[in-house]
Amino acid sequence: MYKVTFKFENSEDVEVFAALGENLLEVAKKANVAIDAPCNGNAACGKCKVKLVGGELDSAKTRHITDEEYAQGWRLSCVSKVIADVEVLVPDIASAYRSRMKVADLGSTEELQIFEQTKADIAEAGIGFKNDLEVVAITMDVPSLDDTMPDNERLVWAVEAACGVSRVKLPFAVLKKLAGVLRASSFDVQCIIRRAEDKVEVLDILPAGAEAKVCGLAIDIGTTTVSALIINMLDGSILAKASAGNGQIRYGADVINRIIEQQKEGGRKKLQDAIIKETINPLIHTMCQSAGLNTRQIYRMCVAGNTTMNHLLLGVDADPVRMEPYIPTFFETNSVYANDLGIDIYEHARIIMAPNIGSYVGGDITAGTLASTIWNKEEMSLFIDLGTNGELVFGNAEFMMSCACSAGPAFEGGDISCGMRATDGAIEACKIDKETMEPTFTIVGDEGQKPVGLCGSGIIDVISELFRCGMISPKGKFIREGERIRHDKYGMGSYVLAFKENAASVKDIEITEVDIDNFIRAKGAIFSAIRVMLQSLDFDVSMIDHVYVAGGIGSGINMKNAVSIGMFPDIELEKFSYIGNSSLSGAYTMLYSTEAEAKVAELSHNMTYLELSNEPTYMDEFVACCFIPHTDATLFPSLEMY
Amino acid sequence: MYKVTFKFENSEDVEVFAALGENLLEVAKKANVAIDAPCNGNAACGKCKVKLVGGELDSAKTRHITDEEYAQGWRLSCVSKVIADVEVLVPDIASAYRSRMKVADLGSTEELQIFEQTKADIAEAGIGFKNDLEVVAITMDVPSLDDTMPDNERLVWAVEAACGVSRVKLPFAVLKKLAGVLRASSFDVQCIIRRAEDKVEVLDILPAGAEAKVCGLAIDIGTTTVSALIINMLDGSILAKASAGNGQIRYGADVINRIIEQQKEGGRKKLQDAIIKETINPLIHTMCQSAGLNTRQIYRMCVAGNTTMNHLLLGVDADPVRMEPYIPTFFETNSVYANDLGIDIYEHARIIMAPNIGSYVGGDITAGTLASTIWNKEEMSLFIDLGTNGELVFGNAEFMMSCACSAGPAFEGGDISCGMRATDGAIEACKIDKETMEPTFTIVGDEGQKPVGLCGSGIIDVISELFRCGMISPKGKFIREGERIRHDKYGMGSYVLAFKENAASVKDIEITEVDIDNFIRAKGAIFSAIRVMLQSLDFDVSMIDHVYVAGGIGSGINMKNAVSIGMFPDIELEKFSYIGNSSLSGAYTMLYSTEAEAKVAELSHNMTYLELSNEPTYMDEFVACCFIPHTDATLFPSLEMY
Repeated sequence: MYKVTFKFENSEDVEVFAALGENLLEVAKKANVAIDAPCNGNAACGKCKVKLVGGELDSAKTRHITDEEYAQGWRLSCVSKVIADVEVLVPDIASAYRSRMKVADLGSTEELQIFEQTKADIAEAGIGFKNDLEVVAITMDVPSLDDTMPDNERLVWAVEAACGVSRVKLPFAVLKKLAGVLRASSFDVQCIIRRAEDKVEVLDILPAGAEAKVCGLAIDIGTTTVSALIINMLDGSILAKASAGNGQIRYGADVINRIIEQQKEGGRKKLQDAIIKETINPLIHTMCQSAGLNTRQIYRMCVAGNTTMNHLLLGVDADPVRMEPYIPTFFETNSVYANDLGIDIYEHARIIMAPNIGSYVGGDITAGTLASTIWNKEEMSLFIDLGTNGELVFGNAEFMMSCACSAGPAFEGGDISCGMRATDGAIEACKIDKETMEPTFTIVGDEGQKPVGLCGSGIIDVISELFRCGMISPKGKFIREGERIRHDKYGMGSYVLAFKENAASVKDIEITEVDIDNFIRAKGAIFSAIRVMLQSLDFDVSMIDHVYVAGGIGSGINMKNAVSIGMFPDIELEKFSYIGNSSLSGAYTMLYSTEAEAKVAELSHNMTYLELSNEPTYMDEFVACCFIPHTDATLFPSLEMY
Repeated sequence: MYKVTFKFENSEDVEVFAALGENLLEVAKKANVAIDAPCNGNAACGKCKVKLVGGELDSAKTRHITDEEYAQGWRLSCVSKVIADVEVLVPDIASAYRSRMKVADLGSTEELQIFEQTKADIAEAGIGFKNDLEVVAITMDVPSLDDTMPDNERLVWAVEAACGVSRVKLPFAVLKKLAGVLRASSFDVQCIIRRAEDKVEVLDILPAGAEAKVCGLAIDIGTTTVSALIINMLDGSILAKASAGNGQIRYGADVINRIIEQQKEGGRKKLQDAIIKETINPLIHTMCQSAGLNTRQIYRMCVAGNTTMNHLLLGVDADPVRMEPYIPTFFETNSVYANDLGIDIYEHARIIMAPNIGSYVGGDITAGTLASTIWNKEEMSLFIDLGTNGELVFGNAEFMMSCACSAGPAFEGGDISCGMRATDGAIEACKIDKETMEPTFTIVGDEGQKPVGLCGSGIIDVISELFRCGMISPKGKFIREGERIRHDKYGMGSYVLAFKENAASVKDIEITEVDIDNFIRAKGAIFSAIRVMLQSLDFDVSMIDHVYVAGGIGSGINMKNAVSIGMFPDIELEKFSYIGNSSLSGAYTMLYSTEAEAKVAELSHNMTYLELSNEPTYMDEFVACCFIPHTDATLFPSLEMY
């Protein structure tokens, strides 16, 4: 056995023992050391770099490590074997997440406008914005030797009288603080209550003078990114917002790798800790601090996540999700409370889980479908959520069908060497001059902001422009020469969008053939899914009246370019709308509106699910879509052909 | 500041710093070091001995420490001040408890017979012995690609069909294990359910072949002693039993001292930990081990304790219990579950709290009243529970009145130098020869058992005999000389029941004037309470048709002797019955029988509460009762006068 010492910039060393030849990434996982590994150890993503600072490793050299980096001691942990005592420096994974996605969704004016528009659309569709939480003033007689009713009965009687109900439930959390609050306030209090028909549950009690804040937490748990809002449950206003990388990412970038990981001994607990302790609770604390809230003032939570994320959040075995016949433990559940999961909010807070409808179509899509309002229209609409899984819902007020495909994290900037979320410094739009091959671009942020990386909408533009300028082939390989085009010693081509001198980055911002290939497969997954789902219904793309595009790809998405690379069907551009993070806006709506919560349950019951892997044509379609724009150019009649 | 090091036989040292002159017992409490201190630092009980093994203490010499002990380094911590760095050895408090009370209630044949008789009496009074927990076999179709209902819906449908109900609740604990159990058992399972009208809650799920154990925990939380039973909820049989000292005892022997202690910073948590982590959870583990059970197989719990014990158990502020107008947080509550308190049983187990009816008449008495069955009789009965608090209930099927008095722990052998519970080695009955003053006694346990100490029934006999033989005055002072009668240098007299050569003890077994005084005050509290309560109703002792005596005093109680020392009223001896630990048998019944639970709620609503401290005659009565038998001998006409 050899001693492996993991060193960190901001925390204590972790020492473990490993056998000769053991894989360093596996050693790290066993020791619960967080190393970013989106591809889960397949040497594909190049993210699991560590720096050798003592001892030796038997480490293959790959294209992800430059000669200079190798000389500095950088190694890819997934291709490194333990052969001696060794010390490695592990980059701070939390800051790695932050560097890739910094700012809250809804951070930009555009996103906020889209959110407000979504709310307006849902309201117009007839959903009342109101929930069952209230604050009521309760005044009681002060007890005396002649009036010796105990505190809890005294309060129950007073609440019954004030609310006109016959049953009042006092949970333990209220019982525990009752004596103190009643005496501190001379029996003049406010109760935060939940009202249901003829009964009331008292969620909290505070003195009459105190400021009664009744907050809720809406959270979109994406495979790659987690976005959250804290709202005022009494008026729906947003009090805080934040997003962060999903801490589970070190166990794999996609749901399949995470399910495999949770099957290992102690795996469920690790995955659950990664999302709750490392991601959600820190987000809650950050938001509460910024808004001057106590975490216990959050009395309800709504989660929208895919089926796997929902199972991992609850610590429920997710393996059946991926194993035939693909039967998850639950689609819907209403028996989960904050203290079941250790989420740092009011301990008895109910957790609303947006319902799943299949193994790969989850609560993010049912909540997103609510937000899209396609369920309220006569016209045939296609709702596309561009996440790590791509999901589609097609239909109208009469019927809805859904399906899912695995797109990978490319739309959110994952698996792209200079990829990032649509936040400050992201290149969100790009033009390339066909002659000079010089780019011009639009960058998210204030004027003068230098580029940091490429978000999804920027990647679409760059690929579309590279193709339009004849710089890449339909397969995404560079076919022109130039100052900005270069090839490394493995022959991999890349195009430099910004040299580091002009960028807010320590290296050139470029797009590589690997990036392009990753993105082509992502867009191919989406387009083939659209094709196969419509075919199964005997529909044609021409019958689509409207397309609603959601996800972290960015509000700068250029629909024309997305069509031109074969990502979306070739229909009139005015039929496309970008609706932002529909999972989060759906979760917000379910949290704030009792009617919306019921509506999503109804939608989920009425939505059918198409398992694409059961469709015989899907693989062929996918392969045909892995070109720019497609092997069958007739599908894109409006495109100028080169 | 000086360093104080607490040393232990079986655990690590605890080091803290204390100021010059700080009281050692207070230093220990702050450091959460368990030192037995029933009188809470009033130098009255002599239990808080520690042994000086290094450094110095400024320590008063008291009658509780012999010269020999003092020379060995023994000091009373409550009269010791820190004046230098010091090291003291702390006796193991857990074994101190055990030495005073070793064996489970119901341990003896007599106690078990009494318990069975109680059950029979309650059944005869019309209470059905049945609860709402069941085990049902549930078989589901195995899912397939054509039958993709998720696990939880599949189970809910199957339970609805099997139980003929329209609503099924699956708590989170079941959801979490569902996938594993269903697949391990090919969807052929057993559910442990709770049935209520048209709905069912699934408490647990296990494979079809597994042995389904549905257990319950009945627990009597006495101020001094905690007694518990684990039962089979399906047939009522007792699977395990145990008792232990209440770990809170180091914070004071009576409820007032404990309430004062819980008011200090962090006090509520400390008191709660002392009863749950140090007392109840170890009892549960001991019992489960002896019965071959998993603690998670306990699906329900019933607690009978006095009002203060109930508040401390829940971690609810108990201060209002002792402060005018004496308003506790709750009499009844049904919103407490095992995981709210950290009790090591099934996490969602409901905790039935036997209802309190006043600040000093709690669930132990309402549960005990059920067990006494006085509520089912036309005759006027008096129910007396001889605990650390003495409580009385007087009445019949028409009305019931209750009251409480503070008796101290003497009935359970506490505050008595050689006192112990009625268990192996306890002198439970005694005769003294008037001429020779030689005692003969009956000892609990097998033949040949040597005496260890004196239990409550034995103390009654000894005092009664000492008085009958003219050895003590009506005030309890020794007035004869003899080989077995001696006086220490402070002038305190004592009578040796057994010299250490003839005892299973390291010292002579004796009864001292302090012991007698403690007991006289305990019996005086009881008798004066009886008098004052009857007077308030314009009743006379002659109108009592029956007296039911409960508590840890022991089944050997000699009612004639109890009357002769003025503890009980002078009525016909055949009117007295000893009914054992009625709090525990009541808790057992409430746990096992849903009808009993409802009956106790009904009894508690119909029982009035007399606050003795508001009765102007009580103090005078008490003082008059602190004689043997009483200052007014006419109250005891049947006694031969000496």
